[in-house]
Amino acid sequence: MTETALFARMERELYSAVLSDALDRVGVRNHTANPRIRPLKSGMVAAGRAATILCATVHEVPEKPYEMIIGALDKLKPNEVAFLAAEDVSAAIWGELLSTASRARGARGAVIDGVTRDVKQIVKMNYPVFSTGITPTDSSGRADVVETGTTVKSGDAEIRPGDIVFADIDGVVVVPRGVEKDVLKLSFDKVRKENTVRSELIKGRLLRQVWEKHGVL
Amino acid sequence: MTETALFARMERELYSAVLSDALDRVGVRNHTANPRIRPLKSGMVAAGRAATILCATVHEVPEKPYEMIIGALDKLKPNEVAFLAAEDVSAAIWGELLSTASRARGARGAVIDGVTRDVKQIVKMNYPVFSTGITPTDSSGRADVVETGTTVKSGDAEIRPGDIVFADIDGVVVVPRGVEKDVLKLSFDKVRKENTVRSELIKGRLLRQVWEKHGVL
Amino acid sequence: MTETALFARMERELYSAVLSDALDRVGVRNHTANPRIRPLKSGMVAAGRAATILCATVHEVPEKPYEMIIGALDKLKPNEVAFLAAEDVSAAIWGELLSTASRARGARGAVIDGVTRDVKQIVKMNYPVFSTGITPTDSSGRADVVETGTTVKSGDAEIRPGDIVFADIDGVVVVPRGVEKDVLKLSFDKVRKENTVRSELIKGRLLRQVWEKHGVL
Amino acid sequence: MTETALFARMERELYSAVLSDALDRVGVRNHTANPRIRPLKSGMVAAGRAATILCATVHEVPEKPYEMIIGALDKLKPNEVAFLAAEDVSAAIWGELLSTASRARGARGAVIDGVTRDVKQIVKMNYPVFSTGITPTDSSGRADVVETGTTVKSGDAEIRPGDIVFADIDGVVVVPRGVEKDVLKLSFDKVRKENTVRSELIKGRLLRQVWEKHGVL
Amino acid sequence: MTETALFARMERELYSAVLSDALDRVGVRNHTANPRIRPLKSGMVAAGRAATILCATVHEVPEKPYEMIIGALDKLKPNEVAFLAAEDVSAAIWGELLSTASRARGARGAVIDGVTRDVKQIVKMNYPVFSTGITPTDSSGRADVVETGTTVKSGDAEIRPGDIVFADIDGVVVVPRGVEKDVLKLSFDKVRKENTVRSELIKGRLLRQVWEKHGVL
Amino acid sequence: MTETALFARMERELYSAVLSDALDRVGVRNHTANPRIRPLKSGMVAAGRAATILCATVHEVPEKPYEMIIGALDKLKPNEVAFLAAEDVSAAIWGELLSTASRARGARGAVIDGVTRDVKQIVKMNYPVFSTGITPTDSSGRADVVETGTTVKSGDAEIRPGDIVFADIDGVVVVPRGVEKDVLKLSFDKVRKENTVRSELIKGRLLRQVWEKHGVL
Repeated sequence: MTETALFARMERELYSAVLSDALDRVGVRNHTANPRIRPLKSGMVAAGRAATILCATVHEVPEKPYEMIIGALDKLKPNEVAFLAAEDVSAAIWGELLSTASRARGARGAVIDGVTRDVKQIVKMNYPVFSTGITPTDSSGRADVVETGTTVKSGDAEIRPGDIVFADIDGVVVVPRGVEKDVLKLSFDKVRKENTVRSELIKGRLLRQVWEKHGVL
Repeated sequence: MTETALFARMERELYSAVLSDALDRVGVRNHTANPRIRPLKSGMVAAGRAATILCATVHEVPEKPYEMIIGALDKLKPNEVAFLAAEDVSAAIWGELLSTASRARGARGAVIDGVTRDVKQIVKMNYPVFSTGITPTDSSGRADVVETGTTVKSGDAEIRPGDIVFADIDGVVVVPRGVEKDVLKLSFDKVRKENTVRSELIKGRLLRQVWEKHGVL
Repeated sequence: MTETALFARMERELYSAVLSDALDRVGVRNHTANPRIRPLKSGMVAAGRAATILCATVHEVPEKPYEMIIGALDKLKPNEVAFLAAEDVSAAIWGELLSTASRARGARGAVIDGVTRDVKQIVKMNYPVFSTGITPTDSSGRADVVETGTTVKSGDAEIRPGDIVFADIDGVVVVPRGVEKDVLKLSFDKVRKENTVRSELIKGRLLRQVWEKHGVL
Repeated sequence: MTETALFARMERELYSAVLSDALDRVGVRNHTANPRIRPLKSGMVAAGRAATILCATVHEVPEKPYEMIIGALDKLKPNEVAFLAAEDVSAAIWGELLSTASRARGARGAVIDGVTRDVKQIVKMNYPVFSTGITPTDSSGRADVVETGTTVKSGDAEIRPGDIVFADIDGVVVVPRGVEKDVLKLSFDKVRKENTVRSELIKGRLLRQVWEKHGVL
Repeated sequence: MTETALFARMERELYSAVLSDALDRVGVRNHTANPRIRPLKSGMVAAGRAATILCATVHEVPEKPYEMIIGALDKLKPNEVAFLAAEDVSAAIWGELLSTASRARGARGAVIDGVTRDVKQIVKMNYPVFSTGITPTDSSGRADVVETGTTVKSGDAEIRPGDIVFADIDGVVVVPRGVEKDVLKLSFDKVRKENTVRSELIKGRLLRQVWEKHGVL
Repeated sequence: MTETALFARMERELYSAVLSDALDRVGVRNHTANPRIRPLKSGMVAAGRAATILCATVHEVPEKPYEMIIGALDKLKPNEVAFLAAEDVSAAIWGELLSTASRARGARGAVIDGVTRDVKQIVKMNYPVFSTGITPTDSSGRADVVETGTTVKSGDAEIRPGDIVFADIDGVVVVPRGVEKDVLKLSFDKVRKENTVRSELIKGRLLRQVWEKHGVL
């Protein structure tokens, strides 16, 4: 399966909670990005390889504004998800035009551990963007890119360039390369099993009976 | 009126703000659970008797995971609302399968002073669930039930087993047994009165005139 | 153009992010109210002149409850937006009846740096209300108006009576009287220019090329 | 015993933890002011009757600055402790000159649920002042007195004018008038009992033995 | 060297910052407990093996109060440091009598990721106690021990029973058993080297020269 | 007067609260750095010209650790005060060796809007260091210098290179160059006047009388 097909299938069939359980199963317990990161609209889903972008607060408008964020965005590749570590930043490091440029490069979405703006337009173009908050205030002279392609942290997870990032209504999980294969297999399996469990519970079975029989919860 | 009929009528006709005012009127001023508790979807409403479940953070996966939450859920009775005091907990103590099991027992909804997951599926099954946040991360080895059927606190309210809990888009209020009858009467009365006040204001009457005439705001 | 026509056009054509950029351009960099202020529903927009209302926490029900908030609301004038500085207050200082009264006076909306209630009814009447949170708990004996028509602060902005307030899905910006004319001109201009930029990005142009050519981001 | 003798004895022999236990014993479980209130110097102790002063944030310098705080301070009476409810205020509502004036009126100290300044001078004059923080910034145009002699809240306690306030290194407790007599008796008794318990523990007795024998911990 | 001699030497010669650097060197980068944990008095130092005690909030006075904390304390062994994970708890889980009992068992101190009381008496008996805060309010019916001898978390560190805990004015570091030997060797070595660096800097050498020569900062 | 003599006199005779009042008087109302910045020891005072150093969080150990902080410190000049804007950083960006190097360059102290370590040693060498917190954890791979000699923000103040910074037990104030002369004159005057006011208050004069006569509070 091509990467494009894999990520499209993940977006269609999986969800972050089931990936989280699979990561727990293989012993990777710190895998959830800042839980305050939420989709701009409830149905948004994005799966892809992390393109990490580390941001920081600044207090002066630089001579060449946007220099570094432009450099970071123009380097995005197909099937990547831009992951902006900007938790300490209060200005909007993301917006409509970056969403447009990012989609034009083939990226599958953007996860910002920080704030965005242009929510109305991004929702209208239906590009999957996830952020911890919203503000109209632009980043110029307030925040800047410090480094790209470096390891970043968010919530209890570390995100390395190339790790799989999966974001949906429940939040954002990170699958390190080393466990990628096992985690995907476990996840696709569990999704099937949950259908059985659900229908038994609807029939009135006690949780204890169902748990003892299927070991899924 | 049966309890089932009463709670169904409450869900149809009342709202949390009017119950809050009635509680103030009878002198119970601390009656609002943590105001960060929000419905997973805006139209959700739940009224019922509190089944209290106290949770705490743990740091090791126990030998028998889920043992205590399973015990708590399998004991739920019709017309109860599960009230999980899990404010200190960062993992998801609630999810789709617990919602399914809880509805199968006849419970009218779940209020979690803590976080949940499986939002997409819970919204799809249209079960009223209220929480302070959302995360994909499972509770196993991160949080556990400490006690059931005990008094718990949330926001400025104490919730005793059997107290009426009412949750909607404005938040969650708690009606202690001792004032239940008076509070319900005052609430159904006030809802009627507000229609008059509203139409006078629309016609352009000043708030002062309306307040002096009807004593409702 | 009348003020009514101006504000209606602003609500139709502008958005808070473009006003924020224009304010930056004229050197007014502190212009964003508390970014936790959010619309009760995503499509809400309000533009108008600020009617400032400063609130504070109290701990006793006064002899004449609501005396001061009634006084403040009954003074509202057409094309004003009520701006309630109530960040320190945990009870709901706003609700359905105040929304009804405020609309009846010709006000275009309410921005509360604090919490509201009656969300369901306010959304139903489609009145633009923005707040930092929601609670069912009434303000009587918990919060009160301290002063009206005074300068207030919210986020990094100062709001003076008569300043233009613009609130939408991205947040709330404040345009001081002295720069009003320039900011409006720059904003209407920028909205036009962004259409060009957007279509070039969709065609695959790099951000660097677009930025160097149009100077818009 | 005169009030002056009583409060002097309390400051000499009691401490806030023992009063807290006695309040628990008589069923008053919400009796601790904001635990972030700390003495400016570790040995400071103050016991007296609460003179309550409610403060709030303002954003403009008034025509007559300090008008209201002066009024509040000049009314202080001997054996009172000024209790300033100023939790929402970020400027210093207290300082050296107010300490000097307050001592000159016979007050036994000041508890500020808010911030103070002039720490060096207040410590030098050895006047018992307790606050949640310190800042050099003056209150003029930033905070003001809203009301005096009203009920105020701090932490989980309500403070009514005339309630006994006791502040030391462990924090601030409030003894309501109705339970004053019982609480003082229980407290002076417990202080005696603890000496026995302490010496048994030093000799190596297990906590279980000591607790079963004396019922003190 | 006996354990008693080792911990006494560590308390005399080492400090938490040098242990932190050594832990970084051997690749254990998450080793610092909650940095809000502070000594009750500035000179306090404690080194020993962790006796972990996990606590949680409760909302009712149990039938047998203190049952579980008594059990935990009476089991303490010589050269242990009690480590109470009570970050979510707002009542005082520690105090003078527990300090007395703990010292009588031979424990070298107590680290509370939570609040304590009886500060005056603990400081007087000079027992090393570290906490995140102080309150007069007792734990009975407000907090309880949930488990002992389990892994707990604090700050970015995991503390397993028997890990070395070192607490001083800079904070609290945790040395896992597996790297204990290497970390202690590196630490005693670095302390010696710093004396050379310090004296070169005092003479006016640039940081760059000193860093390039000694590799210590 | 030389700069050295001026700053020595300021440290001896002035305090931050009086400078804060003088700044208010000349219309500079935003002049207080983050009020959580506290001296490591109560008597510490530092006055000098700001050498600004902007820091940010990083998540990887760089190839050349400490490269940038070394560069920043080695450039310090006599009568400067290092001002580190590191509010978003949780590792210790300052410590004993930097204090030693900074004093060797003639700097008068360090103000860190962030955390430090090596408190015991810094207090022992009696170098004025102010920080928002303390941690043993080193900055390498956790935080780095982003820029020097740029405008930085802290609390409600902007600090430009060369502005006077004054730090003592009450906090940190910033005097912009343009108002420097007026502010110093007003401050030295006010210190004299306060002695009169204080002695009148001690004699029992009411605050109102003293305020009306001297206009000082």
